[in-house]
Amino acid sequence: MKTVVWETLSDSQKEAVLERPAISDGAAIGDAVNDVINLVRKDGDAALKALTMQFDNVEPESVAVTTAEVDAAVARLGQGIKDALQQAYNNITCFHRAQKPQPVRVETMPGVTCELITRPIERVGLYIPGGSAPLPSTVLMLGVPSQIAGCQKVVLCSPPPIADEILYVARLCGITEIYNVGGAQAIAAMAYGTESVAKVDKIFGPGNAYVTEAKQQVSNDHKGAAIDMPAGPSEVLVIADTYANPDFIAADLLSQAEHGPDSQVVLLTPCMAMAEKVASAVSEQLTVLSRAEIAKQALGSSVIIIAEDLEECVEISNRYGPEHLIVQTEFPSELLPLLDNAGSIFLGAWSPESVGDYASGTNHVLPTYGYTRTYSSLGLADFSKRMTVQKLTPEGLERLAPTVETMADAEGLDAHRNAVTVRVKALQAAKEAREEA
Amino acid sequence: MKTVVWETLSDSQKEAVLERPAISDGAAIGDAVNDVINLVRKDGDAALKALTMQFDNVEPESVAVTTAEVDAAVARLGQGIKDALQQAYNNITCFHRAQKPQPVRVETMPGVTCELITRPIERVGLYIPGGSAPLPSTVLMLGVPSQIAGCQKVVLCSPPPIADEILYVARLCGITEIYNVGGAQAIAAMAYGTESVAKVDKIFGPGNAYVTEAKQQVSNDHKGAAIDMPAGPSEVLVIADTYANPDFIAADLLSQAEHGPDSQVVLLTPCMAMAEKVASAVSEQLTVLSRAEIAKQALGSSVIIIAEDLEECVEISNRYGPEHLIVQTEFPSELLPLLDNAGSIFLGAWSPESVGDYASGTNHVLPTYGYTRTYSSLGLADFSKRMTVQKLTPEGLERLAPTVETMADAEGLDAHRNAVTVRVKALQAAKEAREEA
Ligand SMILES: [Zn+2]
Ligand SMILES: [Zn+2]
Repeated sequence: MKTVVWETLSDSQKEAVLERPAISDGAAIGDAVNDVINLVRKDGDAALKALTMQFDNVEPESVAVTTAEVDAAVARLGQGIKDALQQAYNNITCFHRAQKPQPVRVETMPGVTCELITRPIERVGLYIPGGSAPLPSTVLMLGVPSQIAGCQKVVLCSPPPIADEILYVARLCGITEIYNVGGAQAIAAMAYGTESVAKVDKIFGPGNAYVTEAKQQVSNDHKGAAIDMPAGPSEVLVIADTYANPDFIAADLLSQAEHGPDSQVVLLTPCMAMAEKVASAVSEQLTVLSRAEIAKQALGSSVIIIAEDLEECVEISNRYGPEHLIVQTEFPSELLPLLDNAGSIFLGAWSPESVGDYASGTNHVLPTYGYTRTYSSLGLADFSKRMTVQKLTPEGLERLAPTVETMADAEGLDAHRNAVTVRVKALQAAKEAREEA
Repeated sequence: MKTVVWETLSDSQKEAVLERPAISDGAAIGDAVNDVINLVRKDGDAALKALTMQFDNVEPESVAVTTAEVDAAVARLGQGIKDALQQAYNNITCFHRAQKPQPVRVETMPGVTCELITRPIERVGLYIPGGSAPLPSTVLMLGVPSQIAGCQKVVLCSPPPIADEILYVARLCGITEIYNVGGAQAIAAMAYGTESVAKVDKIFGPGNAYVTEAKQQVSNDHKGAAIDMPAGPSEVLVIADTYANPDFIAADLLSQAEHGPDSQVVLLTPCMAMAEKVASAVSEQLTVLSRAEIAKQALGSSVIIIAEDLEECVEISNRYGPEHLIVQTEFPSELLPLLDNAGSIFLGAWSPESVGDYASGTNHVLPTYGYTRTYSSLGLADFSKRMTVQKLTPEGLERLAPTVETMADAEGLDAHRNAVTVRVKALQAAKEAREEA
């Protein structure tokens, strides 16, 4: 791992050290994805079947997974993994249920009541990537909040054959609409609907460059679907002081590095000796990993930054804005108020990133690539939307009327003023009628 | 106004009635906007000055508005409008302050604590359009939540000359960075920064097609800026029963129609007589409006829909998903639990849309064009982001370890499992050492 001493760097060198690698802008695959989307819109299920043959090399009997198939998957699965998934489900449910917003209702003036109310997004689509290993954890991270939010229709797409673990978690989360379709064609199917696959309002989940590009394209079309957040390679940044355990840090860096060759791994420490110990622990632990080749590639672009002190570590971290931020210091909670621009924060020696990836209860769908500055960790809020409500009494309207009339005048909007004036006049007329009676 | 009876329509006719007019897809202006953005990125302030001369026909002394200029604007402004703006500011502050989220902190398992914490977005940019009439209300709607959220840097751009009302509200909201720049060049300046204008992380506010296109373009660039929400023409839908006052409804429809020729106006009622009374009240009120020509154009594409009953009115409204939804029925609050897919809801005869546009306390920046299905009314949440935090005790980690190890195995991620295992082994070794001692 490359080591740099922060204070010896020029401003532009500092910027370069924290720079993310460029992501291909999708222009190259944009046309291919656009073709797939158009094909699915035109030919529906037939297109899905043809594309699944072409890209996944399987021909599922039907686009939809049947209840019997889920039953069989549940029966096949071992008790050990079932228990683990159930425990993770319980913890994630606990934390996401706690995110239910308090109702907001205030009288801003006597007779003027304003409310903020929340409604589930009616139809959501969850994309679960395929690949060499199944990702039941991602089903949990998307399925649990959709269940708690109360989304009426939850659609899950994944390239066939869909692993038993995924079908088991889908059942835990109450998801009954599951489709054997992956890639850009799955995103197109959920955004526009086919004979089998229901159209949804918002699409969630990770995926390869084609899936990411398809999500971008359908989200730019108002007849398509909204999406969860922009995508980028996964990242971890560890802040460590002299009290940290270098073996733990090495294990955390490697768990990020094994995600993919483009994973970003950063260690920030004021302690040169710690940096050296971590680097040698990384080399040692690397030898026994099954995904050592992937991890090695990721480590090639990783960096250890030696800072002046913990305050500077915090500054650099806030500037980088990591997806995952692990704090292994003597008093990690003391740094929390200073930390900003992170997706999920792991405090102390006993909180490795992998607990958040799977089962602590937090969501593992997080903003990355610097989007932590403006985007949030995925949560219950992303499966619902907020509407405002106002109700005025006649007295409330009379009290507020001069303000609205004056502002409407200032903005040159007669009819806006008139909508208030016509009501105030009616109230006055009614009052006069009562007085005369 | 065109009147249709819902039950006499075919499915495709129903769809056509609720269809929004196509918005030009921006392809035509995309290149022009892209040129402006590139120019601003290359030449900075010099480009801003040149473009302001070209598009706004004024040459401001400096890009930045000085404190003295704001002082002068505040001194010039009449007390009446100042009082109105202050009252609106107070109400909007009251409602947005009430939106501060409760802290979320739960122990999902003994020894496993998860938190959801909120941080302000550090740097935000507010765009306020120019035009024939100033829009101080929009400054309130963007400035108040940025102030309450605690954004460190708030930048306001508006085409010169900036109206006194706008400068006054900016001061109320504590905004000190104000720039004489409008259009796509303002969006470019805030997204990328110039010598004068600070780069921001997220840009808010309405604008013409060029501003909308520029917001779209900078939000698709990860070095640009995030944006508040997609744009579309403004809309109102009124649900009325026989108890409604047709003059009030007509005034509300017209206040929407005067916004622009592309404004969408829909009346839903089970009562044909009410429909006729509203239509004739609209014709009558129209004659005295200063913006009658604009309103007439908007009314040309507006529609009155006769439904079977109020339940069907609710169904149609939920399907359309209006930006503004006014409910003028005998018991409006009883319909609220059934209403979905609306930006802001106005309950009862005394709650015209114009109170929400200006001063009830709710935000007037709302999703439109059907985006109410997935997007929220602008609020405090849009000026902040949510991060998660987890902290495990040694016992918590030991308790959760089997779950994480089993799931990491299932997903084939050795290093993820190892980050837990290395810690559990250290705990066991420490325990054994204590027992031996
Ligand atoms: Zn991970
Ligand atoms: Zn309005």
